[in-house]
Amino acid sequence: MEALRWEDHALWLLDQTLLPGETRWNRYTDYRPVVADIKRLAVRGAPLIGVAAAYAYVLAARAAAGGGDFAGAMDRARDDLAASRPTAVNLFWALERMDRRRRAVGADPAALEAEAEAIQKENIQVNEAIGRYGAEVVPPGARILTHCNAGALATDGIGTALGVIRAAHRQGKVAMVYADETRPLLQGSRLTAYELHADGIPVTVIADNMAASLMGKGRIDLAIVGCDRMAANGDLANKIGTYSVAVNCHYHGVPLYVALPLSTMDLSLPDGSGIPIEERGGEELTRLGPVQTAPEGVAVYNPAFDVTPHQLLAGIITEKGVIRPPFGEKLRALFPG
Amino acid sequence: MEALRWEDHALWLLDQTLLPGETRWNRYTDYRPVVADIKRLAVRGAPLIGVAAAYAYVLAARAAAGGGDFAGAMDRARDDLAASRPTAVNLFWALERMDRRRRAVGADPAALEAEAEAIQKENIQVNEAIGRYGAEVVPPGARILTHCNAGALATDGIGTALGVIRAAHRQGKVAMVYADETRPLLQGSRLTAYELHADGIPVTVIADNMAASLMGKGRIDLAIVGCDRMAANGDLANKIGTYSVAVNCHYHGVPLYVALPLSTMDLSLPDGSGIPIEERGGEELTRLGPVQTAPEGVAVYNPAFDVTPHQLLAGIITEKGVIRPPFGEKLRALFPG
Repeated sequence: MEALRWEDHALWLLDQTLLPGETRWNRYTDYRPVVADIKRLAVRGAPLIGVAAAYAYVLAARAAAGGGDFAGAMDRARDDLAASRPTAVNLFWALERMDRRRRAVGADPAALEAEAEAIQKENIQVNEAIGRYGAEVVPPGARILTHCNAGALATDGIGTALGVIRAAHRQGKVAMVYADETRPLLQGSRLTAYELHADGIPVTVIADNMAASLMGKGRIDLAIVGCDRMAANGDLANKIGTYSVAVNCHYHGVPLYVALPLSTMDLSLPDGSGIPIEERGGEELTRLGPVQTAPEGVAVYNPAFDVTPHQLLAGIITEKGVIRPPFGEKLRALFPG
Repeated sequence: MEALRWEDHALWLLDQTLLPGETRWNRYTDYRPVVADIKRLAVRGAPLIGVAAAYAYVLAARAAAGGGDFAGAMDRARDDLAASRPTAVNLFWALERMDRRRRAVGADPAALEAEAEAIQKENIQVNEAIGRYGAEVVPPGARILTHCNAGALATDGIGTALGVIRAAHRQGKVAMVYADETRPLLQGSRLTAYELHADGIPVTVIADNMAASLMGKGRIDLAIVGCDRMAANGDLANKIGTYSVAVNCHYHGVPLYVALPLSTMDLSLPDGSGIPIEERGGEELTRLGPVQTAPEGVAVYNPAFDVTPHQLLAGIITEKGVIRPPFGEKLRALFPG
């Protein structure tokens, strides 16, 4: 299962808005359509957006390398890419890393391409490490709830939350994964169920509002989610609905884990209150394809993310290991120097 | 706003599966298509199902009155109607009342028609009383969360939960109603938003998974839901997702009220564990109209209701007034003799 390829200096992205009905790959040699496709969620998932932005940066560098003001052109491209979505911090992390490399090497697209490839390779290894560490928190016979898609389609690796589930499944410990469908864009039923079903991992789709009922019946042993940005105290932004999962886990005594690479952490924010939350158009709730699902002209509130306070987490899973509360000092220690 | 008419000995029902896109009324002179349309949720909402079943009983009586075994034919019709949906108790309540009347009057369709009309008229008055009493719990400037549709389209009156909201709105106390869209069949966005929008009551559609986030921001003052069956201790079955609303209300200190007629109470059950919960087909989660929303062949769990324990309720609103905890004795006192 993959969602991104880099071949012959061109970027290929799987259009995730069409899954599971249609598998269509788009080819990009210009960075600007990549910006548009990040905005419309054809490519999504915090780590994958980071990798895609790094390659889009390379596309911009190749176009600008022959021209006059290389630095100015690259600043504009970086700003365009940075303006695509506000919440997931991996985007900014990847662009900063590419900017740093560009300042070191100048108008050298090949060196920038090597940097993007390094980001991609490291990301795949980071996913493997998250899976390896995270599998330790999964008990035998586990019935696991997950929300949205933090899998191969979100990360260009085995996934963060789904990386943990894949690793635990290899160890024979996964009895069932319950996938919240994740309204409004259904990344859970369209993408997570698709990934896990394809890999032969037992998965059951539920509506988001059914998870509490399963917990009340003792049918969920733990929950694992991904993350779009984590503040220094462990507060995290993730797909809208994660906070409701967290409150329900807390009420029912179900441990909730978040799995993320260090590139998703934003130590510049002391807590989650400063994380910018993207609000998206109301049409995501008033139409689905040709079907009208709400009356014309009705008001809609459609935040794409919510913030879960660190107090509701049983643990944070990164490529450096599993951290248990209290988180603050331990998170800071992951970033030496 | 109405969903049921009785004209010239025929039953008319608004097909609620087509709202808000299309307003189509179907006419019934045979009780059997009514059974089918209750099953497929063309007519839905516990009180409305009760009224529709009473009139369907009349249709069966008119057909059987000329034949031989009237009692046998009516027993079969009653059993067919009773088998349409298992959870909402108003269906069984209405059929029992019609059976009682039939045993008194025999093969007399006109008398049975009068009984069904009495059920319908009483139901409308009961809704008004629920609204009148319930409005007292709504503070000025209230921002109210509701789940599913417990309105005119569910009750053939002003509604139970929406009856309270309508009465409070007439008193100028409603700042905003947040309507959970209510997956999988979207009764919140398709029906509740449609009703309130048509009546000029301020309404905002949200996905079910967004309510917790609003509560976390202090943007919900109270929640009001309807009910499909309440046990003797106040435990209640309502549309799937109600339990998640209740847990989130509890965590955030938001009072949760349930509004229901006495005909929705089932004192034969000591608590909610005995309420039968309908499970519906997986296609409600894998397709929406022509759109495939999950991979082919994936497992789905699709309960239509969940049970909320009475401990999570701030109050129960009936046509006899508002009851505060502890509920048991006070509920029993509503049924003298």
